[in-house]
Amino acid sequence: MNQDIISEIKNQDYFSITETIEKFLVDQIEKNHAKGVILGLSGGIDSAVLAYLCKRKLKKNTLAIIMPDTTITPKIETELIDIKPIINEYSMYLEPNDKSKGNLRARVRTNILYYYANVKNYLVLGSSDKSENLIGYFTKFGDGASDITPIISLYKLQVRELAKHLKVPDNVISKKSSPHLWEDHEAEKELGLPYEEIDSILYCLFDKKLSVKETQEKTQIEKSVIENSEHKRLTAQKPVIE
Amino acid sequence: MNQDIISEIKNQDYFSITETIEKFLVDQIEKNHAKGVILGLSGGIDSAVLAYLCKRKLKKNTLAIIMPDTTITPKIETELIDIKPIINEYSMYLEPNDKSKGNLRARVRTNILYYYANVKNYLVLGSSDKSENLIGYFTKFGDGASDITPIISLYKLQVRELAKHLKVPDNVISKKSSPHLWEDHEAEKELGLPYEEIDSILYCLFDKKLSVKETQEKTQIEKSVIENSEHKRLTAQKPVIE
Repeated sequence: MNQDIISEIKNQDYFSITETIEKFLVDQIEKNHAKGVILGLSGGIDSAVLAYLCKRKLKKNTLAIIMPDTTITPKIETELIDIKPIINEYSMYLEPNDKSKGNLRARVRTNILYYYANVKNYLVLGSSDKSENLIGYFTKFGDGASDITPIISLYKLQVRELAKHLKVPDNVISKKSSPHLWEDHEAEKELGLPYEEIDSILYCLFDKKLSVKETQEKTQIEKSVIENSEHKRLTAQKPVIE
Repeated sequence: MNQDIISEIKNQDYFSITETIEKFLVDQIEKNHAKGVILGLSGGIDSAVLAYLCKRKLKKNTLAIIMPDTTITPKIETELIDIKPIINEYSMYLEPNDKSKGNLRARVRTNILYYYANVKNYLVLGSSDKSENLIGYFTKFGDGASDITPIISLYKLQVRELAKHLKVPDNVISKKSSPHLWEDHEAEKELGLPYEEIDSILYCLFDKKLSVKETQEKTQIEKSVIENSEHKRLTAQKPVIE
């Protein structure tokens, strides 16, 4: 792994990034005639960063929903909806399939966020970051679905830096990333690479516009993980009718 | 209402359109390494047209799911999932709101289509047409969510003509359009205009590139219905971080 590349990725002006995103959020609410924003709080770094970004300018117009798939109720003061009974109800009508059920959990969470957003005229915040977006690591129309995506221009390594800047608690920053599609679901384990390597590849390819060969030479890592995800990043395809 | 405009909209080569869409479907399956397509069958014209378009080239690779919000089971041979108990389960945790619940129904249907699509490696067909798309008449991430949208280049009036060409039964063609978000939900009643008027406006604005003033003069209809829907047709907005 090339540490210079990693430093280059991390080395950003997080004061200015914070201001840009805070302004973006306020502007989007105004532009869409909305009354606030809503987000799912997973306990992970991305949604924590979103919550912290909303704290200063949108304290009274932010609703965070916690949607675990478990009957254990964590002691936190906020709206909490256990999705397990909802998932169970779907499961009565659908053939068992772990992967499909995992994606269903992400979609049920999005349904609930949009339900509240409808009721309150709030915008749904998406927590996807640049790393997840470029490799298609999200559930289409699940966590990949939102009205606005405040941190999608930031690589995961940059989100971690931003989290430090925003004083997100250390235990959240150091927690292993998880899409929470099933128990013990870990992003880096599933992807087969730590985010240091994933971001190094993506940064070389997309920001520095290096060729695949140059990127492989520079990072010494395979690029197979970014294949086969194109259709997730595209909107629905349509036929060309003249 | 200007009948010349309506004739101009309807007067298309539906043989060629049918072939184009059939080829598009086959190409998309190949391109996405999928095994087939899946669609929700509502009993209305759009999904009927989709089903008929799949019939010739994709008979063995098409799965149609019927998802009513009722316990009455229609006598049809196909996969049928009553979404009522699923909706009821959500309702136990969410404050009552008719509009939000209507949109939730559309999203639950999409969840189920994607569940099957995941299990079978099928592509989800979207049934949105050009009229619905341009005025934003769909549930974002509900019926507005799909992998491919075969009839999105056709106005509703053209879909009706295509339906005749495909020999879709008359009772389906003449049935009032409905998004089925609640009981007795009728599209034209909700929109406040018949599709002849909606399509005339959209055709003048988007296809003939007339100004709003010229369109109003030509059609003698207000254009307020196309306002306030822009955010539905855009993908999630993101902040510009330099």
